[in-house]
Amino acid sequence: MPPADPQRLSLNTATVKQQWTLAQAIEGCARHGIRGIAPWRDKLAELGLQKAVSLIRSHGLSVTGLCRGGFFTAKDWLDDNRRAIEEAHALEADCLVLVVGGLPAGSKDLGHARERVQECISKILPEARQAGVPLAIEPLHPMQAADRACVNTLEQALDLCDALGEGVGVAVDVYHVWWDPNLAAQVARAGSRILGFHVCDWLVPTTDLLLDRGMMGDGVIDIPAIRRLVEAAGYTGPCEAEIFSKDNWWKRDGDEVLRTVTARYATVT
Amino acid sequence: MPPADPQRLSLNTATVKQQWTLAQAIEGCARHGIRGIAPWRDKLAELGLQKAVSLIRSHGLSVTGLCRGGFFTAKDWLDDNRRAIEEAHALEADCLVLVVGGLPAGSKDLGHARERVQECISKILPEARQAGVPLAIEPLHPMQAADRACVNTLEQALDLCDALGEGVGVAVDVYHVWWDPNLAAQVARAGSRILGFHVCDWLVPTTDLLLDRGMMGDGVIDIPAIRRLVEAAGYTGPCEAEIFSKDNWWKRDGDEVLRTVTARYATVT
Repeated sequence: MPPADPQRLSLNTATVKQQWTLAQAIEGCARHGIRGIAPWRDKLAELGLQKAVSLIRSHGLSVTGLCRGGFFTAKDWLDDNRRAIEEAHALEADCLVLVVGGLPAGSKDLGHARERVQECISKILPEARQAGVPLAIEPLHPMQAADRACVNTLEQALDLCDALGEGVGVAVDVYHVWWDPNLAAQVARAGSRILGFHVCDWLVPTTDLLLDRGMMGDGVIDIPAIRRLVEAAGYTGPCEAEIFSKDNWWKRDGDEVLRTVTARYATVT
Repeated sequence: MPPADPQRLSLNTATVKQQWTLAQAIEGCARHGIRGIAPWRDKLAELGLQKAVSLIRSHGLSVTGLCRGGFFTAKDWLDDNRRAIEEAHALEADCLVLVVGGLPAGSKDLGHARERVQECISKILPEARQAGVPLAIEPLHPMQAADRACVNTLEQALDLCDALGEGVGVAVDVYHVWWDPNLAAQVARAGSRILGFHVCDWLVPTTDLLLDRGMMGDGVIDIPAIRRLVEAAGYTGPCEAEIFSKDNWWKRDGDEVLRTVTARYATVT
């Protein structure tokens, strides 16, 4: 299998969330030869959308995704998702990543939460289509079903895509899907609907359900095997490194993190 | 839906693992009117098999399962599983629960680990059949795929049952399966192969991937809905309370735990 193409590496800014502003992350990417960036909206708000757009452009980066829309359990979900679509449009982002939200407060009805996700996406989809912003449903690991996303398998995300039609696809993050016995079949089914491919690693032991992701190569995920599946399905887009790591990578110097991301991308991704 | 039948409640001894010996757990069950018990083998070894058998019988308890066989990644897996089958036979346990093991040390090949599970079960199955000990494959939550069990969905466990034939079924633990979008269909498919039904709850937030399970009613799992599925599939067997809880229930008095289990079983299970 050919090595990962360095031109396709992108930095999800969550990877340096604690140590860098968005401006620093943009400059860091440029300094380390990383051609893509995927910002989070809290950092975008800090910098200001227009400043972000011009800084990203002046450094010649592409925006491989905007994190995030979704969270349909929030009170202001509709307005918030509209703003997210506008921001993704302004950034010329490849997609808006949807983390769909878990169970509403006080509810145990996962089936209903899942139906609601489809209704909510169908409400924002016309605006997303008009803005030319593809929506990428990201299935999250089942351990995050209650509090972050009730879409937990690629199969489920693709069923939503089937129901919703054009303008909706999926983001495949190895961390969320590596355990899935149906992964190969569902990646093949996804085909051209794969809008993003995210990498990091599953650590053994994992000490936190959200913030203990590993650097590529430090865990047990066979990342090249999953990349092979995704590419066999026709995906030729960017590969985002997205590492939430409160006790390790978030505590290190940002340049050290980017050096490591770049090196590991070349060798174990 | 009719309330849970008190006669069907069973105590998985992991629930009082830190505070009680097996002898204390047996006496505790008798004291609290719990008719079934599911011991773990470390506690069984401490007490001694024959003593355990006679103490369980003298208190009129039934053994709803023995925990655990499996862990096919261990060096001595074959001998260990043979001993487990003998112990389950001596205890007249309803089944031997298989926690199949995760990835072998140094491996990232989940597919191979999964194939190996089938091979290993097929090796112990003749002895299990001869001993009259049904083997219950327990799919574990995907967050435990690397280190405890590479069988992570009911669908996968049932595919193994299909391949292995008579003498193998599944244990359905709400904690491991509640998130599964295919749960209803797979429980129906399981039918008479459901050998055990385990309850506890999923806490929000969950602070540990293994030892932070909740008491029934303290989390977000719709336990009655899953019991309904299991019973609609024809299951009329015991309902085991199995709560690993290092920072809460394991720190409380055993009688308080059993009182709570019994009360919650009656109201939220």
